[in-house]
Amino acid sequence: MQLDNLSKQLEFIKEIDKIKYIQRKTRLFNSDRNENDAEHSWHLAVMALVLVEHSNEDIDLLKVLKMVLIHDIVEIDAGDTFLFDSQRDDSKESEALAARRIFGMLPEKQAEEFMAIWEEFEEGSTPEAKFAHSLDRLEPVLQNDSNNGGTWAEHDVPHEKVIKKVSVMNNGSTILWSHAEKLIGRFYSEE
Amino acid sequence: MQLDNLSKQLEFIKEIDKIKYIQRKTRLFNSDRNENDAEHSWHLAVMALVLVEHSNEDIDLLKVLKMVLIHDIVEIDAGDTFLFDSQRDDSKESEALAARRIFGMLPEKQAEEFMAIWEEFEEGSTPEAKFAHSLDRLEPVLQNDSNNGGTWAEHDVPHEKVIKKVSVMNNGSTILWSHAEKLIGRFYSEE
Repeated sequence: MQLDNLSKQLEFIKEIDKIKYIQRKTRLFNSDRNENDAEHSWHLAVMALVLVEHSNEDIDLLKVLKMVLIHDIVEIDAGDTFLFDSQRDDSKESEALAARRIFGMLPEKQAEEFMAIWEEFEEGSTPEAKFAHSLDRLEPVLQNDSNNGGTWAEHDVPHEKVIKKVSVMNNGSTILWSHAEKLIGRFYSEE
Repeated sequence: MQLDNLSKQLEFIKEIDKIKYIQRKTRLFNSDRNENDAEHSWHLAVMALVLVEHSNEDIDLLKVLKMVLIHDIVEIDAGDTFLFDSQRDDSKESEALAARRIFGMLPEKQAEEFMAIWEEFEEGSTPEAKFAHSLDRLEPVLQNDSNNGGTWAEHDVPHEKVIKKVSVMNNGSTILWSHAEKLIGRFYSEE
């Protein structure tokens, strides 16, 4: 049983290596090098460790870590979706298919646990999911701030649209959103 | 106080972006593209989630995650050290300096916690540190196995030396070491 589990787990571990090739639109700090999904997921996980005190609600840090570590694995099949892309909602179905295929490589009980964690993140309504989403929004704000507006500038995203998409951060952390709002406002006032 | 913490935490979050530029000797699965430290740390964290049942001892998964997520941050100053390099022990002092500088950017209590976690990993004697080291050894074995021997072949590392360096995995997980030993043996028997 343990060896059967191990064999499935190792196949999963190899499969998820592919997220290292999935390029995001955002770039590393003070850089023109795009970030990939593995780097992004690592950064969110360390941000969770460091910023946990700023969550609006008491949270289970281990669950937040699980969420941010696996949230982008579905992009192996479904690809990266840009936050400001109007087609973004169309990707939901292909992401759910991807989750079933990729998490389904794991032993059954573990596959169920990973699916549940991913669905809870996607749903975004528990304290842990809200905080995980706050981190997922914060990282590109910090990156864009360091890159003269980054994707906001490159894709001519209007100020209101950035506020609308990023203010979901407020649900997980008022203090992080308050800081992000200032950085966004500074870029648009100087434009 | 909370804003003062946040300011320090955000500086730390920017600083650690640099590990995305630190190239390891090992390459991605079935690939000739080198892995960087952020990708490696992410992969170890997901491996911890997936493989926790194979730990020899009961472990605190959250602590293992903290260890693998931050263990390579010191390489921002100290650089990557190759497992099979005989100068490896010389890097201990520069890594300790790096830990004090980089974790020291965080608010005091948090800096102390991160230093303690990093030191516990380096020391390698608690059940969590042993399992974290097992994962840190396992990933390059899987990568080398998928890359016709990878760094073992490229650097002509003798079989005994690989066994000596990698068998520390046995302290954290006998089942993972048993699997790794087979993969290593297969490469050297076919050489």
